[in-house]
Amino acid sequence: MNISVLSIGDEILSGDTVNTNSTWICQKITELGFDVVRQVTCQDNKKEIISSISFLLESSPNYVIVTGGLGPTEDDITRKVLFDYFDVQEIFDEKYWQKLVLKYKKLDIEVLDSNRSQALIPSDGGFLPNPIGSARGYSFIKKNTKFFILPGVPSEMKGIMNETILVELQKIVTKPILRKLIRTTGYPESVLAHKIKKITDLNHGCKIGYYPSVYGVDIRISNTSSVLLEKFFIGIQNILGDICFSDTKIPIEHLIIKKLSLMNKTVSIAESCTGGLLGHRITNIPMASKVFNGGLITYSNESKSHLLGIPKNLIDDHGAVSEIVARKMSEEVKKRFETDYGISITGIAGPGGGTKEKPVGTVFIGISSINSTKVYKYMFGKDREKNKLKTSQAAFNMLRLSI
Amino acid sequence: MNISVLSIGDEILSGDTVNTNSTWICQKITELGFDVVRQVTCQDNKKEIISSISFLLESSPNYVIVTGGLGPTEDDITRKVLFDYFDVQEIFDEKYWQKLVLKYKKLDIEVLDSNRSQALIPSDGGFLPNPIGSARGYSFIKKNTKFFILPGVPSEMKGIMNETILVELQKIVTKPILRKLIRTTGYPESVLAHKIKKITDLNHGCKIGYYPSVYGVDIRISNTSSVLLEKFFIGIQNILGDICFSDTKIPIEHLIIKKLSLMNKTVSIAESCTGGLLGHRITNIPMASKVFNGGLITYSNESKSHLLGIPKNLIDDHGAVSEIVARKMSEEVKKRFETDYGISITGIAGPGGGTKEKPVGTVFIGISSINSTKVYKYMFGKDREKNKLKTSQAAFNMLRLSI
Repeated sequence: MNISVLSIGDEILSGDTVNTNSTWICQKITELGFDVVRQVTCQDNKKEIISSISFLLESSPNYVIVTGGLGPTEDDITRKVLFDYFDVQEIFDEKYWQKLVLKYKKLDIEVLDSNRSQALIPSDGGFLPNPIGSARGYSFIKKNTKFFILPGVPSEMKGIMNETILVELQKIVTKPILRKLIRTTGYPESVLAHKIKKITDLNHGCKIGYYPSVYGVDIRISNTSSVLLEKFFIGIQNILGDICFSDTKIPIEHLIIKKLSLMNKTVSIAESCTGGLLGHRITNIPMASKVFNGGLITYSNESKSHLLGIPKNLIDDHGAVSEIVARKMSEEVKKRFETDYGISITGIAGPGGGTKEKPVGTVFIGISSINSTKVYKYMFGKDREKNKLKTSQAAFNMLRLSI
Repeated sequence: MNISVLSIGDEILSGDTVNTNSTWICQKITELGFDVVRQVTCQDNKKEIISSISFLLESSPNYVIVTGGLGPTEDDITRKVLFDYFDVQEIFDEKYWQKLVLKYKKLDIEVLDSNRSQALIPSDGGFLPNPIGSARGYSFIKKNTKFFILPGVPSEMKGIMNETILVELQKIVTKPILRKLIRTTGYPESVLAHKIKKITDLNHGCKIGYYPSVYGVDIRISNTSSVLLEKFFIGIQNILGDICFSDTKIPIEHLIIKKLSLMNKTVSIAESCTGGLLGHRITNIPMASKVFNGGLITYSNESKSHLLGIPKNLIDDHGAVSEIVARKMSEEVKKRFETDYGISITGIAGPGGGTKEKPVGTVFIGISSINSTKVYKYMFGKDREKNKLKTSQAAFNMLRLSI
C-alpha cells in the first residue's frame, strides 16, 4: 500500500518552517507498514497545488495526505482550490458554525466573518473532525486514490491523524510490521551497540535502529514475527538492564511521577543552572501536583544563601558549583518543602563562567532521600541549551534509580 | 529567479530523518532573493528520480539543487542515474583518486574499491569541490536549467553550498526579494488580519503571510522594492502598535533580558501552574544571570504560604487561583529576591481542577514593579502544555509592556 504526502506552504519553501509535519506523517505511516512514495512541498497557489497533485497521482498511490492552508485568512487557499479540483460545492454547516461561535465567545475571541469559511464542507466527500482546533479536515476520492486534507498547525494535524486517519489505515494493513522500543539514557549509541553486539551479531532477522537525542538513545527493533521480535527484545533488555528506563514513549518524568504517586511520596527541586526546567518538565504531567510540592530557582549566589540557607562561607570556600553545595541544596530544599526527596542542581551551563578546574558543562546533581544524600558530578558539553536538557534528564534518571 | 530542490532518500520518506537539508537550502536561497518553487523528496530508485526531475522541470526553474545518494555504498545510485539522464560518460579522475588514497591512509582508513566511484567525473558538466568529505558534487545544464548535485551528509552539502553554489548564485541576483518580519503576540491571526485590513486592501504590491504558533502570530511581508516594503511595514506597525514585539527572530525573553540589562534592573518569578517554565525560558539566554535572581515554584498551597508568605486565609477565602493571590505572589517574590520586578503566575493548567467559575485555562498573571502591581486575568484553552506555553508568553509580554 502506497501513500504520498503534499505539504502546501510558502513558509516551508522559504525555509522559515522546518517541515516536521511531513516527517511525523511519514513516520506514523511507515510504522503502520505502508510505504511513502513521494513527498512534495508546493507554493500556496492554485496552479502549483494542482500540478503537484497530478505528479503525486502519476504513481497511483492508495492515499494522498495533504497539509496546510486551511486557516481563515486570505493566504489560506487550499479549501477553495481543492473543492474546485474535486468539483464539489461548498455547503455551509450551520450547526458547526453555531458551535464555533459559542466556543469563541467562551474564549472571549471576536468572531469574524472570515471564520465562516471554517464551517464549509464539501457537497461530495467527507469532513474530518478536529479535536484540537476549528479547521476541520476533508476527504475526497479520485479514481483509486483517497485524499485526506488537513490543517498545517502541527497539533491539529496530529489530532486529526490520530483520531481518524491512522485508525482507518490501521484497519486495512494485512501484514503489519511489529515494533518495539527500548529507551536508554546515559550512554552513547556506539557504547550501546558494542554492549549488545553478541545479540545483534546473531541471525535474529529483526531490523534495528538507534535514534539518539539529547535525552538518550532510543533503540527501535521491528519484525513481522512477534516471536522473533520478543526474543530479540528480551535479549537486549537482559544485557542493558538498568540502562533501559522504558519500553514506551512515556517520558522519564512521567514514569517517576507514577512511581512516586504509587509510593505516596513527594519531591521538591532546587535548581540553579537549569533555571526551572526540571519543574517545567515535571509539571507537564497532569498528575504532578500529587507528588511535586514545588521548587526553588536559586540562580544567584545570594538567593542560594538567603532563600535556601546555604552558608555563604560554603559558597565562598568551595564555589557555588561544588559537591558540597549540591549536597546541601538537595537537603535544604527537601526540608523547606517538607518532601520525601529533594533534587538539587548546580552547574555551569555556559557559554561563560567556566574555569580550568570547572569548565563549561560541569554539573553537580544531588538527590536527598529519607536516609541519605547522593551527589554525582557530570561533564556535559559547551552548548548551553543542551546542557540544561541533558542535566534535567540525568537528574530524573538519578531519581528513578533512587526510588 | 526560481529554484527547485530534490531530496533523494528512503530515510526521509520513512520519517527516520527530518529533511533539514532542504530547509537549510531553501533558507539560504530565499535569503539571497531567489524563490523556491517546488521541493520533492523521492525514493532511491531510477524511475522515481527521473520522474521527480521531470516534474521539477515543468516549472522551468533556473536551478535545481539535488541532494543525497552520492556515497560509496550500493544504495547510493544518484551519480549513475544522473550521468545516464544527462547522457554523459564517467571519467576516472586519477589525480583526485591519488589524493583520496593519501588522505585515507593518513586517517588510517582502509581504501576500498567502492571508494573509486568517488573519483568519477562527468565527460560533460562540472564537478564541485567538497571541502569536508570525499564525495564531490556535480553540475549539469539541461535546456535553461542548471543542476547542482550534492551529497546528503549535511556538513558536506553545506560545505559545497557555501564555497561554490551560494557564491555563484549571489553574483547573478539582479532583483532580490526583500523580506520583513513583524512578530505579534496576544491576538489570533483573524483579528490581526482584520485590524490591518485597510492597509492590506490597498494595492501595496507586497506579499503577506501569517504564521501562527503557540507564542503568537508572525507576519512576514516581502517585495522586491525596498520603498514599497518599508511603507507597508510601517503601515502595519502603526496600526498594530504595541501588539508587535519585534521585527527579528530573537525571542521575547531575550528582548526583555537585553532591556532589563541596559536599565540595570532585575526580576524574579513566582510560578504556580507554569511550574518553572518562565525560569527555564529566561535562563536559556546566556545573559540571564545579569537580570534574573531566581524564582519560586510554589506548586502546592502550603508552599505558597510557607515559602512565599501568602496568608493561608487569603487562599482559603479567594482560592489559590485569584487576582489577590497573584498580586500578593508578585509582591512577595520581588521582596524575597530583592529584585526590581516580580512576576507571578497562578492558574489552572488542566486537565483537572477546573470549576464553573474558574474553568481549566483560567490564569492570573501579576507584575509587581517599583511603584505598583498589575494583575491580568487570561482564559486559555483546555490543553495543559499549551496553557503553560501561552501563559509564559503572556507573562513575558506583560513584563515587556511594563518596563
